[in-house]
Amino acid sequence: MHIFRKISEFQVWRKSQAAPLALVPTMGALHRGHGYLIEQAVLSQIPTVVSIFVNPMQFNQSLDLQKYPRTEDADFALCKNLGVEAVLAPEPTEIYPHPFFSSCEVSTLDKTLCGATRPGHFRGVCTVVLKLFNITQASLAYFGTKDFQQLRIIEQMVYDFNLPLSIIRVPTQRESTGLALSSRNTRLSPEERTRATCLYAGLQKAADLFKQGERNSFNLCQAAEAEMQKGLPFTLDYLSIVDQKSLQNLTYINQPALMALAAFFGEVRLIDNVELVP
Amino acid sequence: MHIFRKISEFQVWRKSQAAPLALVPTMGALHRGHGYLIEQAVLSQIPTVVSIFVNPMQFNQSLDLQKYPRTEDADFALCKNLGVEAVLAPEPTEIYPHPFFSSCEVSTLDKTLCGATRPGHFRGVCTVVLKLFNITQASLAYFGTKDFQQLRIIEQMVYDFNLPLSIIRVPTQRESTGLALSSRNTRLSPEERTRATCLYAGLQKAADLFKQGERNSFNLCQAAEAEMQKGLPFTLDYLSIVDQKSLQNLTYINQPALMALAAFFGEVRLIDNVELVP
Repeated sequence: MHIFRKISEFQVWRKSQAAPLALVPTMGALHRGHGYLIEQAVLSQIPTVVSIFVNPMQFNQSLDLQKYPRTEDADFALCKNLGVEAVLAPEPTEIYPHPFFSSCEVSTLDKTLCGATRPGHFRGVCTVVLKLFNITQASLAYFGTKDFQQLRIIEQMVYDFNLPLSIIRVPTQRESTGLALSSRNTRLSPEERTRATCLYAGLQKAADLFKQGERNSFNLCQAAEAEMQKGLPFTLDYLSIVDQKSLQNLTYINQPALMALAAFFGEVRLIDNVELVP
Repeated sequence: MHIFRKISEFQVWRKSQAAPLALVPTMGALHRGHGYLIEQAVLSQIPTVVSIFVNPMQFNQSLDLQKYPRTEDADFALCKNLGVEAVLAPEPTEIYPHPFFSSCEVSTLDKTLCGATRPGHFRGVCTVVLKLFNITQASLAYFGTKDFQQLRIIEQMVYDFNLPLSIIRVPTQRESTGLALSSRNTRLSPEERTRATCLYAGLQKAADLFKQGERNSFNLCQAAEAEMQKGLPFTLDYLSIVDQKSLQNLTYINQPALMALAAFFGEVRLIDNVELVP
């Protein structure tokens, strides 16, 4: 497995490859959820590249950036194990040489859910992802549905900018307790980690009611919140039911919808979601 | 010569071509300046595509958009004459399907010169150019130095976003009077067209002084303005001397610089520039 620190060295290798390539963009601290993403990419039968880059541009708080877990040696080992062809793990100055002026964004979709409290976050995501698409010239790129808003925004960017690649959606992977796998989980205390399972329990409660025919968003959110109370104390950033395409709030569900949430356990911000499809 | 109205049809043709392609992005109303750009592209010996698209997103005023000259049949004939392989002439709804959310920009460089009085203009330029680069998968793209700020911004965007193509600079073409060729010139009255030659005369005056050793921007601008007085009445939007790379104002020239201007003759906004290289 190749490990590239320099974009230029990656590009020399890239030119030696046959055209198609699968890309799994990550911020490292790889867990079983990333592993599943990578497995799906490798199964595509075209060479798979994993990028590992903790993107400063998408962090709102420098503390969150500093505390973002880094486990590079283990990440490389996992990639090698799973049959990855090459890892691109550049330094920040490789991705953002000085001076750096350009950015891209997907308006409207970036204003709801996480975008409401994380101004500039998705501009950072879009900018680095566009760069990674261009650097790797990938034909397929794999994104997890845990970050559903990110996924939707990138799908829209690909469509709007006529980017020549396809985005593959990969389902959220969970602990046996239901907690969605996240690199940030390692920053939870054991006790917080137990309580945080309430988030998925709440989402499941709503999904059950939805299956029974409940279509009123207020009722579904109320039921989810009641279930989540069992995991207090935590701070709910948002709990919303939105249209899967527009990410705009729905009061009544008669189209593919998403119940999504963000919550702080201590300093750690967790997100999760469940699809509600009539 | 192929003429494509639909992006999807262009892309089917594109896939049938060998990899490299040269692109000349235009807004139509082609004149000898465009002709020279196209000639340079054709000389590259790789198939040349001309795009013709009057980009609504880069117009600040709907009147300017409405009045932008359109000469499609003549444009197609010129392209064919010059050996162009294909013209991409899509409708606005092809480029901006509804809903359309994405945009890109190059900050800082877009705030000086024309950017100071045309907010959002370069965001519109960058967005459509990025789309055209992606649609055409061009290896080379040709831009004129008359729109020097646009050229610099696109060069920076290509660099920042790691776009896999090269930008080729093509010198401004002029009438025998010195007036820079522009699609907007056709909107000038014969009398305005004569007076507008004062712009290049002013730039030349400054360039002559520069050659004689003058390096003080204030003195150079004063000399240019004095020369331009001969063409009054017109309204000078700006006359600036900037660094060629950063586009920031220079008070003293000891690096490659640009004297650039924009001026209104009646409703018509003209731009021009001259390089001042020590």
